[in-house]
Amino acid sequence: MICDNITVNEKGHLCFAGRDTVELAEKYGTPLYLMDEEKIRENCRVYVNALKKYFGENALPIYASKANSFKRIYAIINEEGMGSDVVSSGEIYTAKKAGFPMEKTFFHSNNKTDADVEFAMENGVGFFVADNSEELDAINSKAKTRNIRQKVLLRLTPGIDPHTFAAVATGKVDSKFGAAIETGQAEELTKYALSLENIDLQGFHCHVGSQVFDSEVYIKAAEIMLSFVKEMLRKYSFETKILDIGGGYGVRYTESNPHINIDENIRVLSEEMKKFAAQLGIELPAIMLEPGRSIVADAGMTLYTVGTLKKIPGYKCYVSIDGGMTDNPRYALYGSAYTVMIANKANEKADMLCTVAGRCCESGDLIQENISLTSTVKRGDICAVLTTGAYNYSMASNYNRLPRPPIVMIDREKDYIAVKRETFDDIISNDV
Amino acid sequence: MICDNITVNEKGHLCFAGRDTVELAEKYGTPLYLMDEEKIRENCRVYVNALKKYFGENALPIYASKANSFKRIYAIINEEGMGSDVVSSGEIYTAKKAGFPMEKTFFHSNNKTDADVEFAMENGVGFFVADNSEELDAINSKAKTRNIRQKVLLRLTPGIDPHTFAAVATGKVDSKFGAAIETGQAEELTKYALSLENIDLQGFHCHVGSQVFDSEVYIKAAEIMLSFVKEMLRKYSFETKILDIGGGYGVRYTESNPHINIDENIRVLSEEMKKFAAQLGIELPAIMLEPGRSIVADAGMTLYTVGTLKKIPGYKCYVSIDGGMTDNPRYALYGSAYTVMIANKANEKADMLCTVAGRCCESGDLIQENISLTSTVKRGDICAVLTTGAYNYSMASNYNRLPRPPIVMIDREKDYIAVKRETFDDIISNDV
Repeated sequence: MICDNITVNEKGHLCFAGRDTVELAEKYGTPLYLMDEEKIRENCRVYVNALKKYFGENALPIYASKANSFKRIYAIINEEGMGSDVVSSGEIYTAKKAGFPMEKTFFHSNNKTDADVEFAMENGVGFFVADNSEELDAINSKAKTRNIRQKVLLRLTPGIDPHTFAAVATGKVDSKFGAAIETGQAEELTKYALSLENIDLQGFHCHVGSQVFDSEVYIKAAEIMLSFVKEMLRKYSFETKILDIGGGYGVRYTESNPHINIDENIRVLSEEMKKFAAQLGIELPAIMLEPGRSIVADAGMTLYTVGTLKKIPGYKCYVSIDGGMTDNPRYALYGSAYTVMIANKANEKADMLCTVAGRCCESGDLIQENISLTSTVKRGDICAVLTTGAYNYSMASNYNRLPRPPIVMIDREKDYIAVKRETFDDIISNDV
Repeated sequence: MICDNITVNEKGHLCFAGRDTVELAEKYGTPLYLMDEEKIRENCRVYVNALKKYFGENALPIYASKANSFKRIYAIINEEGMGSDVVSSGEIYTAKKAGFPMEKTFFHSNNKTDADVEFAMENGVGFFVADNSEELDAINSKAKTRNIRQKVLLRLTPGIDPHTFAAVATGKVDSKFGAAIETGQAEELTKYALSLENIDLQGFHCHVGSQVFDSEVYIKAAEIMLSFVKEMLRKYSFETKILDIGGGYGVRYTESNPHINIDENIRVLSEEMKKFAAQLGIELPAIMLEPGRSIVADAGMTLYTVGTLKKIPGYKCYVSIDGGMTDNPRYALYGSAYTVMIANKANEKADMLCTVAGRCCESGDLIQENISLTSTVKRGDICAVLTTGAYNYSMASNYNRLPRPPIVMIDREKDYIAVKRETFDDIISNDV
């Protein structure tokens, strides 16, 4: 199995976090998001422990909550000692309502509105990760009104394209995010931040991509950032307190994705960074990482009921499910790979090539093409899509006026509803 | 301008349906969906009048409500004498709550669940557009329980690829929708429907694609469908009462899309179909079309406020707005073209190449790349994206926990809220 929280029981049913998924589907209905609370906690601990162990007590992993944002998740993340990144007033609102300590939130976004800046400050957001000078002006002005100095990191683009794993002058410099080091804009932004009275510049942030399976790209990014840190010290006597190198490590959507040892990767990263910092003759700032996907993806699974089965002679077999791009738009958006199984026939050989189609009136509403499922699949079977804990619920829509599925959380003792199923009345609640 | 409901006033402000969009943005805030009620009605009348004129009193245009589904739209569509297609229990619920006559609804979907079939029958849906034999079984069984005969159309695939405008044996046959004529499955499905006691087979449906700019593809599809109608008469003495040839005509997203005369296209289509039916020696059934996009797309416009402006030397200029793939995912999904303007500078020359970026923490969250806007664009300007009445609100999400914008409808006398802006409390309302 792609993750150790997935097993098959004596009935041949797929189990998730030790529970029979067929029974869960019956209990809660489909489509259904499941989340494994212990796996979320375990994923948090890997980052928390490794960062402390290799980078010291000031290091902090920050949950990139855009991956999956709802009240309960912030409570869990907080209990595990992580910070949280938030990207909008809506995420700040959700975190706050969940009792998340606001001083441990980091507010990202390429475009914070003036209203967002006001809302974030009103709610005591710990750090703004400022993207540009206009935003610094907005933060400075609001901070002045409040007579405070707002802690700020600056988002920089180190010019690394994570998909080629090479430091290149293209790709990431051409981004809607941050200020490029290469063009001199990062230095300008730093100088500007230092000139603003109500800005308390704490350091820098970069993000080099997601689904990264080793430390090479982080090491390269960290070296570029550390060189910049040194430059800012030399030129402006600015002492960087925090260096946030973004992202987390890749997750296994399919068997073709490698198993990775995150602890070991963070160890290697710390060694290289310490070595490089020593060469530069600087102290390593407090290091932060921002895992989102790798905290929640493999802690999630989606269950559907199989509907229509359509075999077109000479073409292919379509297996339709009672959800689709509304609850998981990632195949429609990016052609993302997923592992799909028939939960009530988990021991049967996957011997039939098919395409799993969503129920939306749209040809592109597919969950996966050309995968193998058991040829005994039929209407009423339970279809499981694995590793859906990230960017599924958070990106869900009501297209075709389909209600969004609930999130059922599984812990050691019980399963419980963390997000309720939407009703038709919810959907029309704002219709006048 | 791409549509006659868009003008510029003496202040140099973009006007929509005769109203100053800058004033509307101020009154309702941004992001904001606008809809022009008169344009919706005008679009409806083009189809209603042309179908009656050229195909007779039994012809009916059916609004494909997945394009934009909310209560008020069903009321307007009903007043204009159209039917409505619905693709889920959620759309049925919305139409019903708006007082739409259920006997004029056509229930589509490649995968109606048993619960959907029950819900639709309970609510008196007029026609089921059945996709396959499993669904026919479900409909027949539920109808039997109710002691009724349910009116049904069968969804067939005529094997036409609309993008090449050629009748081909591939493409549309390989679809999650319907039964293919070419493979013999359509005939099998017809025979099966005729054998079921509680199914009242009324005819056939096909859909050959969207953004079709002339009648050629409809004529070709109609000929294939009429030949099939003739075959079913000859072989099974089945008299087709309704032939629904799906879709509507293309809309102008940009100046490069042609102006089309829908009335004239429907006239040509009717002539060709009558001629072909005469050759076959059959009567023309009642003809239906299913415009969705072409009823609402150009009746819509989205207003945003410009935030960050980022010029990267040697690369490009990013103009960030306070919405994005959350309210309009079509560029992220399909790379769809849109016309973008700065509403408060509508008379200024669009002299700067730029990319309009959404506010989501995602590189792919772009609204349009490499378009021209005025080089005086700055934070606080109002950015208008035109022709957004279809597949924007209906596909909207709360990604990044962004609240969905309201829909403000403009009619001759007033502007009024048809869908209220979501609040943060709405977003967390199902969080436990």
